Amino acid sequence: MNDPTHVPGDRTRVRRVATNAHYDTATLHAIIDAAYLCHVAFGDSLGVHCIPTACWRAGDHLYIHGSNGSRMLRRLQESDACVTITHLDGLVMARSAFSHSMNYRSAMIYGRFEVVSDAAAQRQAMEQFMGRLLPGRQAEVRPGSYKEYAATTVMRIALDEAACKVRSGGPKDDEEDLSWPAWAGVLPLVQTRLAPVADPACTVHAPAHIAGWQQA
Amino acid sequence: MNDPTHVPGDRTRVRRVATNAHYDTATLHAIIDAAYLCHVAFGDSLGVHCIPTACWRAGDHLYIHGSNGSRMLRRLQESDACVTITHLDGLVMARSAFSHSMNYRSAMIYGRFEVVSDAAAQRQAMEQFMGRLLPGRQAEVRPGSYKEYAATTVMRIALDEAACKVRSGGPKDDEEDLSWPAWAGVLPLVQTRLAPVADPACTVHAPAHIAGWQQA
Repeated sequence: MNDPTHVPGDRTRVRRVATNAHYDTATLHAIIDAAYLCHVAFGDSLGVHCIPTACWRAGDHLYIHGSNGSRMLRRLQESDACVTITHLDGLVMARSAFSHSMNYRSAMIYGRFEVVSDAAAQRQAMEQFMGRLLPGRQAEVRPGSYKEYAATTVMRIALDEAACKVRSGGPKDDEEDLSWPAWAGVLPLVQTRLAPVADPACTVHAPAHIAGWQQA
Repeated sequence: MNDPTHVPGDRTRVRRVATNAHYDTATLHAIIDAAYLCHVAFGDSLGVHCIPTACWRAGDHLYIHGSNGSRMLRRLQESDACVTITHLDGLVMARSAFSHSMNYRSAMIYGRFEVVSDAAAQRQAMEQFMGRLLPGRQAEVRPGSYKEYAATTVMRIALDEAACKVRSGGPKDDEEDLSWPAWAGVLPLVQTRLAPVADPACTVHAPAHIAGWQQA
Protein backbone atom coordinates (compact mmCIF):
# COMPACT_ATOMS: atom_id res chain seq x y z
CA MET A 1 0.00 0.00 0.00
CA ASN A 2 1.63 3.24 -1.07
CA ASP A 3 -0.59 5.46 1.02
CA PRO A 4 -0.14 4.38 4.62
CA THR A 5 -3.36 6.05 5.71
CA HIS A 6 -6.87 4.97 4.78
CA VAL A 7 -9.45 7.65 4.17
CA PRO A 8 -12.47 6.57 6.22
CA GLY A 9 -15.70 5.99 4.33
CA ASP A 10 -19.33 5.61 5.37
CA ARG A 11 -18.71 2.22 6.93
CA THR A 12 -15.36 2.90 8.54
CA ARG A 13 -15.59 6.40 9.99
CA VAL A 14 -15.55 5.97 13.78
CA ARG A 15 -18.27 8.04 15.44
CA ARG A 16 -18.16 7.01 19.13
CA VAL A 17 -15.06 8.41 20.88
CA ALA A 18 -13.61 9.29 17.50
CA THR A 19 -10.36 10.37 19.15
CA ASN A 20 -9.60 6.64 19.60
CA ALA A 21 -9.84 6.00 15.85
CA HIS A 22 -6.83 5.00 13.76
CA TYR A 23 -6.81 4.62 10.00
CA ASP A 24 -3.12 3.94 9.38
CA THR A 25 -1.77 0.70 7.96
CA ALA A 26 0.81 0.11 10.70
CA THR A 27 -1.86 0.04 13.42
CA LEU A 28 -4.11 -2.20 11.33
CA HIS A 29 -1.35 -4.68 10.55
CA ALA A 30 -0.18 -4.80 14.16
CA ILE A 31 -3.69 -5.60 15.42
CA ILE A 32 -4.19 -8.34 12.83
CA ASP A 33 -0.72 -9.81 13.36
CA ALA A 34 -1.33 -10.10 17.11
CA ALA A 35 -4.47 -12.19 16.52
CA TYR A 36 -4.98 -15.90 15.99
CA LEU A 37 -8.66 -15.47 15.23
CA CYS A 38 -11.24 -12.98 14.01
CA HIS A 39 -15.02 -12.73 14.07
CA VAL A 40 -16.66 -12.72 10.64
CA ALA A 41 -20.15 -11.23 10.28
CA PHE A 42 -22.26 -11.99 7.22
CA GLY A 43 -25.91 -12.25 6.35
CA ASP A 44 -28.11 -14.85 4.67
CA SER A 45 -31.77 -15.80 4.56
CA LEU A 46 -31.70 -16.77 8.26
CA GLY A 47 -30.37 -13.38 9.37
CA VAL A 48 -26.96 -12.13 10.43
CA HIS A 49 -24.25 -14.45 11.71
CA CYS A 50 -21.03 -13.81 13.62
CA ILE A 51 -18.57 -16.68 13.46
CA PRO A 52 -15.09 -16.94 14.98
CA THR A 53 -12.44 -18.36 12.71
CA ALA A 54 -8.66 -18.53 12.44
CA CYS A 55 -7.10 -15.73 10.42
CA TRP A 56 -3.74 -14.50 9.24
CA ARG A 57 -2.36 -11.64 7.17
CA ALA A 58 -0.16 -11.69 4.09
CA GLY A 59 0.57 -8.33 2.54
CA ASP A 60 -2.58 -6.28 2.21
CA HIS A 61 -5.07 -9.11 2.70
CA LEU A 62 -6.53 -11.01 5.63
CA TYR A 63 -6.95 -14.75 5.01
CA ILE A 64 -9.28 -17.41 6.39
CA HIS A 65 -9.81 -21.02 5.41
CA GLY A 66 -12.17 -23.90 5.90
CA SER A 67 -13.79 -26.94 4.41
CA ASN A 68 -15.27 -26.57 0.95
CA GLY A 69 -18.60 -27.46 2.53
CA SER A 70 -18.56 -24.57 5.00
CA ARG A 71 -21.75 -22.51 4.86
CA MET A 72 -19.83 -19.41 5.84
CA LEU A 73 -17.26 -19.72 3.09
CA ARG A 74 -20.01 -20.17 0.51
CA ARG A 75 -22.02 -17.21 1.78
CA LEU A 76 -18.96 -14.97 1.86
CA GLN A 77 -18.72 -15.29 -1.91
CA GLU A 78 -22.21 -13.83 -2.28
CA SER A 79 -22.22 -10.67 -0.17
CA ASP A 80 -20.02 -8.28 1.77
CA ALA A 81 -18.74 -9.18 5.20
CA CYS A 82 -17.36 -7.38 8.23
CA VAL A 83 -14.32 -8.90 9.93
CA THR A 84 -13.50 -7.76 13.46
CA ILE A 85 -10.50 -8.46 15.65
CA THR A 86 -10.42 -7.33 19.27
CA HIS A 87 -7.67 -7.54 21.89
CA LEU A 88 -8.71 -6.69 25.44
CA ASP A 89 -5.82 -5.09 27.33
CA GLY A 90 -7.37 -4.17 30.65
CA LEU A 91 -10.20 -2.82 32.75
CA VAL A 92 -10.03 0.91 33.47
CA MET A 93 -11.12 1.77 37.00
CA ALA A 94 -12.27 5.37 37.37
CA ARG A 95 -13.51 7.21 40.46
CA SER A 96 -17.03 7.41 39.07
CA ALA A 97 -19.05 4.42 37.92
CA PHE A 98 -19.83 5.83 34.48
CA SER A 99 -16.21 6.74 33.72
CA HIS A 100 -15.11 3.12 33.88
CA SER A 101 -13.79 1.82 30.58
CA MET A 102 -11.71 -0.87 28.92
CA ASN A 103 -8.36 -0.71 27.18
CA TYR A 104 -8.42 -2.51 23.87
CA ARG A 105 -7.16 -2.65 20.29
CA SER A 106 -9.74 -3.47 17.65
CA ALA A 107 -9.87 -3.56 13.88
CA MET A 108 -12.87 -3.77 11.55
CA ILE A 109 -12.49 -4.69 7.90
CA TYR A 110 -15.30 -4.41 5.37
CA GLY A 111 -15.52 -5.87 1.91
CA ARG A 112 -16.04 -8.96 -0.20
CA PHE A 113 -13.96 -12.09 0.32
CA GLU A 114 -12.50 -13.77 -2.75
CA VAL A 115 -11.46 -17.40 -3.11
CA VAL A 116 -7.75 -18.05 -3.55
CA SER A 117 -8.29 -20.48 -6.39
CA ASP A 118 -4.81 -20.75 -7.85
CA ALA A 119 -3.25 -23.92 -6.43
CA ALA A 120 0.20 -22.46 -5.85
CA ALA A 121 -1.26 -19.35 -4.19
CA GLN A 122 -3.48 -21.51 -2.00
CA ARG A 123 -0.49 -23.58 -0.90
CA GLN A 124 1.57 -20.47 -0.22
CA ALA A 125 -1.25 -18.97 1.84
CA MET A 126 -1.65 -22.09 3.96
CA GLU A 127 2.09 -22.22 4.57
CA GLN A 128 2.01 -18.56 5.61
CA PHE A 129 -0.77 -19.51 8.03
CA MET A 130 1.42 -22.19 9.60
CA GLY A 131 4.29 -19.70 9.77
CA ARG A 132 2.02 -17.33 11.64
CA LEU A 133 0.86 -19.99 14.10
CA LEU A 134 4.39 -21.10 14.86
CA PRO A 135 7.50 -20.17 12.88
CA GLY A 136 9.49 -23.29 12.06
CA ARG A 137 6.53 -25.63 12.26
CA GLN A 138 5.89 -26.07 8.54
CA ALA A 139 9.24 -27.83 7.97
CA GLU A 140 8.43 -30.52 10.53
CA VAL A 141 4.88 -31.58 9.84
CA ARG A 142 3.51 -33.95 7.25
CA PRO A 143 2.65 -31.55 4.42
CA GLY A 144 -0.84 -31.27 3.02
CA SER A 145 -1.72 -33.76 0.30
CA TYR A 146 -3.34 -32.92 -3.01
CA LYS A 147 -6.61 -34.30 -1.61
CA GLU A 148 -6.41 -32.18 1.55
CA TYR A 149 -5.75 -29.00 -0.41
CA ALA A 150 -8.55 -29.85 -2.83
CA ALA A 151 -11.02 -30.19 0.07
CA THR A 152 -10.02 -26.82 1.54
CA THR A 153 -11.12 -23.33 0.56
CA VAL A 154 -8.84 -20.39 1.29
CA MET A 155 -10.39 -16.93 1.09
CA ARG A 156 -9.00 -13.45 1.45
CA ILE A 157 -10.33 -9.94 1.95
CA ALA A 158 -8.48 -6.76 1.01
CA LEU A 159 -7.52 -4.47 3.87
CA ASP A 160 -8.42 -1.25 2.09
CA GLU A 161 -11.76 -0.56 3.80
CA ALA A 162 -10.77 -0.76 7.42
CA ALA A 163 -10.70 1.16 10.68
CA CYS A 164 -9.07 0.59 14.02
CA LYS A 165 -10.02 1.79 17.46
CA VAL A 166 -7.56 1.78 20.33
CA ARG A 167 -7.87 2.84 23.96
CA SER A 168 -4.90 2.78 26.27
CA GLY A 169 -3.81 4.51 29.46
CA GLY A 170 -5.53 5.38 32.70
CA PRO A 171 -8.99 6.60 33.68
CA LYS A 172 -10.32 9.95 32.56
CA ASP A 173 -12.49 11.16 35.38
CA ASP A 174 -14.27 14.47 35.27
CA GLU A 175 -12.50 17.19 37.26
CA GLU A 176 -15.13 17.18 40.00
CA ASP A 177 -14.71 13.42 40.57
CA LEU A 178 -10.93 13.45 41.09
CA SER A 179 -11.27 13.87 44.85
CA TRP A 180 -13.67 10.94 45.22
CA PRO A 181 -11.89 8.45 47.55
CA ALA A 182 -11.79 5.42 45.23
CA TRP A 183 -8.68 3.71 43.88
CA ALA A 184 -8.18 4.60 40.23
CA GLY A 185 -6.03 2.95 37.60
CA VAL A 186 -5.85 0.04 35.21
CA LEU A 187 -6.27 -3.69 35.83
CA PRO A 188 -4.23 -5.18 32.96
CA LEU A 189 -5.20 -8.29 31.02
CA VAL A 190 -2.85 -10.09 28.68
CA GLN A 191 -2.86 -13.25 26.61
CA THR A 192 -0.16 -15.55 28.02
CA ARG A 193 1.56 -18.58 26.51
CA LEU A 194 1.77 -21.44 29.02
CA ALA A 195 4.00 -24.51 28.97
CA PRO A 196 3.46 -26.88 26.01
CA VAL A 197 1.46 -30.02 26.80
CA ALA A 198 2.78 -32.96 24.81
CA ASP A 199 0.39 -35.53 23.41
CA PRO A 200 0.72 -38.71 25.54
CA ALA A 201 1.57 -40.67 22.40
CA CYS A 202 4.28 -38.19 21.37
CA THR A 203 7.83 -39.59 21.55
CA VAL A 204 9.49 -36.69 19.69
CA HIS A 205 11.61 -34.28 21.72
CA ALA A 206 10.21 -30.73 21.63
CA PRO A 207 12.20 -28.62 19.16
CA ALA A 208 13.21 -25.06 20.01
CA HIS A 209 10.12 -23.48 18.50
CA ILE A 210 7.92 -25.61 20.77
CA ALA A 211 10.08 -25.39 23.89
CA GLY A 212 10.26 -21.61 23.45
CA TRP A 213 6.49 -21.17 23.44
CA GLN A 214 6.13 -20.62 27.18
CA GLN A 215 6.63 -17.06 28.33
CA ALA A 216 9.06 -16.34 31.14
CA MET B 1 -34.96 -21.75 32.36
CA ASN B 2 -36.65 -24.96 33.43
CA ASP B 3 -35.18 -27.06 30.66
CA PRO B 4 -31.42 -26.93 30.96
CA THR B 5 -30.94 -27.99 27.36
CA HIS B 6 -31.81 -25.89 24.33
CA VAL B 7 -33.21 -27.65 21.31
CA PRO B 8 -31.16 -26.34 18.39
CA GLY B 9 -33.05 -24.57 15.62
CA ASP B 10 -32.19 -23.55 12.08
CA ARG B 11 -29.81 -20.86 13.26
CA THR B 12 -28.19 -22.70 16.13
CA ARG B 13 -27.67 -26.26 14.95
CA VAL B 14 -23.92 -26.72 14.63
CA ARG B 15 -22.98 -28.37 11.31
CA ARG B 16 -19.18 -28.26 11.22
CA VAL B 17 -17.60 -30.74 13.67
CA ALA B 18 -21.00 -31.16 15.30
CA THR B 19 -19.45 -33.36 17.99
CA ASN B 20 -18.06 -30.14 19.51
CA ALA B 21 -21.54 -28.62 19.88
CA HIS B 22 -23.12 -27.97 23.28
CA TYR B 23 -26.66 -26.76 23.83
CA ASP B 24 -26.86 -26.89 27.63
CA THR B 25 -27.35 -23.86 29.84
CA ALA B 26 -24.38 -24.55 32.13
CA THR B 27 -21.90 -24.44 29.24
CA LEU B 28 -23.52 -21.30 27.80
CA HIS B 29 -23.46 -19.47 31.13
CA ALA B 30 -19.87 -20.46 31.85
CA ILE B 31 -18.68 -19.13 28.48
CA ILE B 32 -20.53 -15.83 28.92
CA ASP B 33 -19.44 -15.42 32.54
CA ALA B 34 -15.78 -15.85 31.58
CA ALA B 35 -16.04 -12.96 29.08
CA TYR B 36 -15.68 -9.22 29.47
CA LEU B 37 -16.76 -8.55 25.91
CA CYS B 38 -18.70 -9.99 23.01
CA HIS B 39 -18.96 -9.31 19.29
CA VAL B 40 -22.38 -8.14 18.11
CA ALA B 41 -23.32 -8.61 14.44
CA PHE B 42 -26.22 -6.69 12.95
CA GLY B 43 -27.25 -5.33 9.58
CA ASP B 44 -28.36 -1.97 8.28
CA SER B 45 -28.48 -0.14 4.95
CA LEU B 46 -24.66 -0.06 4.79
CA GLY B 47 -24.33 -3.82 5.18
CA VAL B 48 -23.40 -6.10 8.04
CA HIS B 49 -21.41 -4.87 11.04
CA CYS B 50 -19.51 -6.71 13.77
CA ILE B 51 -18.80 -4.58 16.81
CA PRO B 52 -17.04 -5.52 20.05
CA THR B 53 -18.72 -4.32 23.22
CA ALA B 54 -18.69 -5.05 26.93
CA CYS B 55 -21.26 -7.61 28.07
CA TRP B 56 -22.47 -9.33 31.18
CA ARG B 57 -25.09 -11.91 32.13
CA ALA B 58 -27.90 -11.71 34.64
CA GLY B 59 -30.21 -14.72 34.79
CA ASP B 60 -31.23 -15.80 31.31
CA HIS B 61 -30.20 -12.62 29.49
CA LEU B 62 -27.00 -11.13 28.14
CA TYR B 63 -26.71 -7.37 28.65
CA ILE B 64 -24.87 -4.59 26.83
CA HIS B 65 -24.95 -0.84 27.24
CA GLY B 66 -23.91 2.37 25.57
CA SER B 67 -24.71 5.96 24.86
CA ASN B 68 -28.25 6.74 23.77
CA GLY B 69 -26.72 8.06 20.56
CA SER B 70 -25.03 4.77 19.64
CA ARG B 71 -25.90 3.66 16.12
CA MET B 72 -25.58 0.03 17.13
CA LEU B 73 -28.00 0.30 20.04
CA ARG B 74 -30.57 1.98 17.81
CA ARG B 75 -30.19 -0.60 15.03
CA LEU B 76 -30.47 -3.48 17.47
CA GLN B 77 -34.01 -2.41 18.24
CA GLU B 78 -34.96 -2.82 14.58
CA SER B 79 -33.70 -6.27 13.61
CA ASP B 80 -32.27 -9.50 14.95
CA ALA B 81 -28.65 -9.75 15.97
CA CYS B 82 -26.08 -12.45 16.53
CA VAL B 83 -23.87 -12.16 19.60
CA THR B 84 -20.68 -14.23 19.71
CA ILE B 85 -18.19 -14.80 22.51
CA THR B 86 -14.96 -16.70 21.90
CA HIS B 87 -12.21 -17.75 24.28
CA LEU B 88 -9.06 -19.10 22.65
CA ASP B 89 -7.44 -21.74 24.85
CA GLY B 90 -4.55 -22.95 22.75
CA LEU B 91 -3.05 -24.02 19.45
CA VAL B 92 -3.26 -27.72 18.70
CA MET B 93 -0.13 -29.06 17.00
CA ALA B 94 -0.74 -32.24 15.06
CA ARG B 95 1.72 -34.37 13.07
CA SER B 96 0.10 -33.39 9.79
CA ALA B 97 -0.41 -29.80 8.66
CA PHE B 98 -4.14 -30.18 7.99
CA SER B 99 -4.87 -31.76 11.39
CA HIS B 100 -3.74 -28.65 13.24
CA SER B 101 -6.52 -27.00 15.21
CA MET B 102 -7.31 -24.61 18.03
CA ASN B 103 -8.81 -25.21 21.44
CA TYR B 104 -11.59 -22.74 22.20
CA ARG B 105 -14.92 -22.15 23.88
CA SER B 106 -17.44 -20.14 21.88
CA ALA B 107 -21.08 -19.17 22.24
CA MET B 108 -23.47 -17.72 19.67
CA ILE B 109 -26.75 -16.12 20.68
CA TYR B 110 -29.45 -15.13 18.20
CA GLY B 111 -32.45 -12.90 18.76
CA ARG B 112 -33.76 -9.39 19.20
CA PHE B 113 -32.34 -7.09 21.85
CA GLU B 114 -34.80 -5.18 24.02
CA VAL B 115 -34.20 -1.93 25.88
CA VAL B 116 -34.21 -2.14 29.68
CA SER B 117 -36.39 0.93 30.05
CA ASP B 118 -37.51 0.65 33.66
CA ALA B 119 -35.26 2.95 35.70
CA ALA B 120 -34.85 0.57 38.64
CA ALA B 121 -34.11 -2.36 36.33
CA GLN B 122 -31.59 -0.26 34.41
CA ARG B 123 -29.80 0.70 37.62
CA GLN B 124 -29.79 -2.90 38.83
CA ALA B 125 -28.36 -4.09 35.50
CA MET B 126 -25.56 -1.51 35.57
CA GLU B 127 -24.70 -2.46 39.14
CA GLN B 128 -24.61 -6.11 38.10
CA PHE B 129 -22.20 -5.07 35.34
CA MET B 130 -19.89 -3.45 37.86
CA GLY B 131 -20.15 -6.53 40.06
CA ARG B 132 -19.09 -8.63 37.10
CA LEU B 133 -16.14 -6.37 36.29
CA LEU B 134 -14.90 -6.37 39.85
CA PRO B 135 -16.82 -7.58 42.90
CA GLY B 136 -16.71 -4.93 45.63
CA ARG B 137 -16.13 -2.05 43.26
CA GLN B 138 -19.66 -0.63 43.19
CA ALA B 139 -19.57 0.32 46.88
CA GLU B 140 -16.47 2.49 46.41
CA VAL B 141 -17.13 4.52 43.28
CA ARG B 142 -19.12 7.68 42.81
CA PRO B 143 -22.51 6.25 41.80
CA GLY B 144 -24.15 7.18 38.52
CA SER B 145 -26.21 10.34 38.54
CA TYR B 146 -29.72 10.69 37.20
CA LYS B 147 -28.26 12.48 34.18
CA GLU B 148 -25.71 9.71 33.52
CA TYR B 149 -28.35 7.01 33.69
CA ALA B 150 -30.66 9.04 31.46
CA ALA B 151 -27.93 9.31 28.80
CA THR B 152 -27.28 5.55 28.83
CA THR B 153 -29.15 2.76 27.10
CA VAL B 154 -29.05 -0.74 28.56
CA MET B 155 -30.19 -3.57 26.31
CA ARG B 156 -30.60 -7.29 26.81
CA ILE B 157 -31.08 -10.37 24.68
CA ALA B 158 -32.66 -13.63 25.86
CA LEU B 159 -30.40 -16.66 25.93
CA ASP B 160 -32.97 -19.06 24.55
CA GLU B 161 -31.69 -19.28 20.95
CA ALA B 162 -28.07 -20.13 21.52
CA ALA B 163 -25.40 -22.69 20.75
CA CYS B 164 -21.91 -23.32 22.06
CA LYS B 165 -18.96 -24.99 20.45
CA VAL B 166 -16.02 -26.23 22.48
CA ARG B 167 -12.80 -27.95 21.51
CA SER B 168 -10.32 -29.15 24.11
CA GLY B 169 -7.61 -31.75 24.37
CA GLY B 170 -4.82 -32.88 22.12
CA PRO B 171 -4.38 -33.40 18.40
CA LYS B 172 -6.39 -35.98 16.50
CA ASP B 173 -4.10 -37.21 13.78
CA ASP B 174 -5.14 -39.87 11.35
CA GLU B 175 -3.78 -43.30 12.21
CA GLU B 176 -1.29 -43.26 9.33
CA ASP B 177 0.22 -39.96 10.51
CA LEU B 178 0.96 -41.03 14.08
CA SER B 179 4.46 -42.18 13.21
CA TRP B 180 5.41 -38.90 11.50
CA PRO B 181 8.39 -37.53 13.50
CA ALA B 182 6.89 -34.18 14.56
CA TRP B 183 6.20 -33.04 18.12
CA ALA B 184 2.49 -33.18 18.84
CA GLY B 185 0.50 -31.56 21.60
CA VAL B 186 -1.09 -28.32 22.72
CA LEU B 187 0.40 -24.84 23.06
CA PRO B 188 -1.87 -23.32 25.73
CA LEU B 189 -3.06 -19.70 25.73
CA VAL B 190 -4.72 -18.07 28.70
CA GLN B 191 -5.93 -14.61 29.65
CA THR B 192 -3.84 -13.44 32.60
CA ARG B 193 -4.44 -10.65 35.12
CA LEU B 194 -1.29 -8.58 35.66
CA ALA B 195 -0.42 -6.22 38.52
CA PRO B 196 -2.74 -3.19 38.88
CA VAL B 197 -1.32 0.09 37.56
CA ALA B 198 -2.42 2.99 39.73
CA ASP B 199 -3.31 6.31 38.17
CA PRO B 200 -0.44 8.75 38.93
CA ALA B 201 -2.95 11.08 40.59
CA CYS B 202 -4.37 8.32 42.80
CA THR B 203 -3.62 8.70 46.51
CA VAL B 204 -6.02 5.99 47.68
CA HIS B 205 -4.52 2.75 48.95
CA ALA B 206 -5.57 -0.23 46.83
CA PRO B 207 -8.36 -2.16 48.56
CA ALA B 208 -8.33 -5.96 48.64
CA HIS B 209 -10.41 -6.35 45.48
CA ILE B 210 -7.82 -4.30 43.54
CA ALA B 211 -4.72 -5.74 45.20
CA GLY B 212 -6.07 -9.25 44.62
CA TRP B 213 -6.43 -8.73 40.87
CA GLN B 214 -2.99 -10.02 39.94
CA GLN B 215 -2.72 -13.76 39.48
CA ALA B 216 -0.05 -15.68 41.34
